[in-house]
Amino acid sequence: MISRRAFLSLVGTAAVVGRSTAGARGQSGPVVDAARLRRRLEQLSTFGRPAGGAFASGVSRVAYSDADVAARAWLLAEMRAAGLTPRLDAAGNIFARWGGDPARPPILFGSHIDSVPSGGNFDGDLGSLSALEVMQACQAAGVTTRRPLEMVVWAHEESTAFGKGTACSRIVAGDLKAGDLDQTWNGLRRADAIARIGGDPARIEQAVRPKGTWHSYLELHIEQGGTLERAHVPIGVVEGIVAINRYDVVVEGFANHAGTTPMGERQDALVAASMVVLAVREIVASRQGRQVGTVGRLDVEPNSPNVVPGRVALSVEFRDLSEATLRELGNAIRARAATIASQTGTRITADLASTNPVALADQGVQAAIGRAAERAGLEARRLPSGAGHDAQMIASLCPMGMIFVPSIGGISHSPRELTAWDDCARGAGVLLGAILDLDRRDTVG
Amino acid sequence: MISRRAFLSLVGTAAVVGRSTAGARGQSGPVVDAARLRRRLEQLSTFGRPAGGAFASGVSRVAYSDADVAARAWLLAEMRAAGLTPRLDAAGNIFARWGGDPARPPILFGSHIDSVPSGGNFDGDLGSLSALEVMQACQAAGVTTRRPLEMVVWAHEESTAFGKGTACSRIVAGDLKAGDLDQTWNGLRRADAIARIGGDPARIEQAVRPKGTWHSYLELHIEQGGTLERAHVPIGVVEGIVAINRYDVVVEGFANHAGTTPMGERQDALVAASMVVLAVREIVASRQGRQVGTVGRLDVEPNSPNVVPGRVALSVEFRDLSEATLRELGNAIRARAATIASQTGTRITADLASTNPVALADQGVQAAIGRAAERAGLEARRLPSGAGHDAQMIASLCPMGMIFVPSIGGISHSPRELTAWDDCARGAGVLLGAILDLDRRDTVG
Repeated sequence: MISRRAFLSLVGTAAVVGRSTAGARGQSGPVVDAARLRRRLEQLSTFGRPAGGAFASGVSRVAYSDADVAARAWLLAEMRAAGLTPRLDAAGNIFARWGGDPARPPILFGSHIDSVPSGGNFDGDLGSLSALEVMQACQAAGVTTRRPLEMVVWAHEESTAFGKGTACSRIVAGDLKAGDLDQTWNGLRRADAIARIGGDPARIEQAVRPKGTWHSYLELHIEQGGTLERAHVPIGVVEGIVAINRYDVVVEGFANHAGTTPMGERQDALVAASMVVLAVREIVASRQGRQVGTVGRLDVEPNSPNVVPGRVALSVEFRDLSEATLRELGNAIRARAATIASQTGTRITADLASTNPVALADQGVQAAIGRAAERAGLEARRLPSGAGHDAQMIASLCPMGMIFVPSIGGISHSPRELTAWDDCARGAGVLLGAILDLDRRDTVG
Repeated sequence: MISRRAFLSLVGTAAVVGRSTAGARGQSGPVVDAARLRRRLEQLSTFGRPAGGAFASGVSRVAYSDADVAARAWLLAEMRAAGLTPRLDAAGNIFARWGGDPARPPILFGSHIDSVPSGGNFDGDLGSLSALEVMQACQAAGVTTRRPLEMVVWAHEESTAFGKGTACSRIVAGDLKAGDLDQTWNGLRRADAIARIGGDPARIEQAVRPKGTWHSYLELHIEQGGTLERAHVPIGVVEGIVAINRYDVVVEGFANHAGTTPMGERQDALVAASMVVLAVREIVASRQGRQVGTVGRLDVEPNSPNVVPGRVALSVEFRDLSEATLRELGNAIRARAATIASQTGTRITADLASTNPVALADQGVQAAIGRAAERAGLEARRLPSGAGHDAQMIASLCPMGMIFVPSIGGISHSPRELTAWDDCARGAGVLLGAILDLDRRDTVG
């Protein structure tokens, strides 16, 4: 907990958001430059923008694409122009360190700049460019931190290119198996993809970092949901990144002629699958809590208008901060599936296909974010992250925390993804404030 | 109606089923040779049989394929060996005529020998080879018919190659538009496909036949449903081929992140579509009658496990002998869709994409089939055909009737399609009996 004396000492260097650099305003504390942050977000948006489009057209900047390579070159140039010395690890992640006692583990913060196909201009970009803003604000204000500040731009966060489990922050966290770099995507070997963005696949194991490398990790990100916007709360303090249990469900009925099979004789796999879809929603929505459940994928065989469906494969995904809740939801849908199978004359299997463990945010980092928001006069709300983030991987190496800012309409992974410029600047200011807060403490908690 | 005298005259030539030709049995009436029929069904099954397979492996004899071309050549040779003179019309349909007064319109009967991919050995084959059996039985018994008997093997009944509306019996019924022969399938032009099976695409309009060309049309076919088998009734007298109304339904919700979108904020197109699937079943099953309703095709966008579905397109198909019932079912599902849309925050459109009019079987032909069954001591049941048949097209040219025999388990369009050999022979015998019955009458009814 923070002492009264420590609190007062922090107030003196409270980060604020300005329209120009701190120096120009003559303030003593470091200040995030909201105009520069916006300009950089707009510049970054041009890499991967659809031909003839505008900022609102969104971006397709899939990792390892030409657009990604060009955006990274632009970012490295911006970092050098800001007086930083960026370096790439063997996985292609971009780092830059500034100030502090080199004997101490740095405070790490950042995000990513790759996007999903037809994505938006805030997911990842905001946290990455705000990290650069924090570095420049501290430099400009001549702040002396006890610990080095280290910004990072993780490569391939969206895992679009080589699929689930191939984000480059995973390599840093030690999730690397023999043969992983032999994966291919559109004819591109993963090793060659990593070399393409400046990584060193031959020395990939050097990218793996041990626990204790960093003091803590912070990530600013858009919420990608609508909770903050609806509540008119500008800052979210993330409690953790939810666990995900995904089931592969297969419904086997009997394909038959749609004209000659009386209704009472059908073993219609799609009728049974539809019952499963509605059961997922009912099971999830009938409990207290913020758990979610989704059937996002559903494939019908033979999928012909004049054939009673014989087989349906679907995905069922549950997310919550409580892994116990996920197990209960899984048991509930399996029990319902058995009932549905017997009602419809079908056979239904539900196999747990993948699990993502929960990544809880550190209480001390959460507190530091809360204090930074408070000092900036911004209301903050605790909430889970339903989406995955690089922070999830780095949580295994050091205390982690995330700051959310509102997504208009809760829309993300879409060209319509949008966060108000003021909210972007507020988030960057709170990131700066939380980093300085943590730097003053001997322990994180 | 049949007079007592006419009935007695028919009894004398009642068709029976024998294990050998009529001549060998020394009977006066024509007799279907059950063993020959079976042998031919087994021989035909080898054209398009999966490599290394057996009769039970089913058949892939898609129209215009090498297997179809080879099977047609075999069939033409069998017809010639039976003393017939087959001829092809410009669409590739195979005809052969025998006996009767050439000034009278012939009685036409037959079916098809093309199959769906991975189909069975009875759909079409039974009716085609039984037609040949009828011709041979009459020849062997020296029967003198008043009208010529004409067998037909329609080309491309399954419409697999060029899609809905491209069966060659449609051309005969006059359903031919400019440009139809320019359709392509797997790089094959429809005109070239027709030439490949011996048709004459340059003179395609000569295949069109006017009303009055035939006295009547009969088709023996497997039921493709389970009604007769479950009821232990060997003969079905088809009342008509059901009308089909097909709707293209589109559900538009909003695609969003499966982790960050709370359950209450979702506009999940798949949840709404699942409600539509269940509503179709409920609306159809809650009415008296034999109508059926099917959602056979359902496509989800973006169809990714971690994205709340934004759009679902599905087909809804209703079939019944009553077009009024179909309109009521269509109105009911549209009303339910509106309710579902408002419950789920989605937009649902249901467009009538295609209609197939009902093709009623002629009462006189139905009566002739019923009498033939009765004379053979076989129980018969009236029932609709839920599946389409060439008979549907030919119904616009002359009085039409169909004979069904039981499908084991109601399975069709599958290698597991099966009809007992005895039921095949019974069906062929009733076909023969019904043809001779009709030949004795001055009018059909």
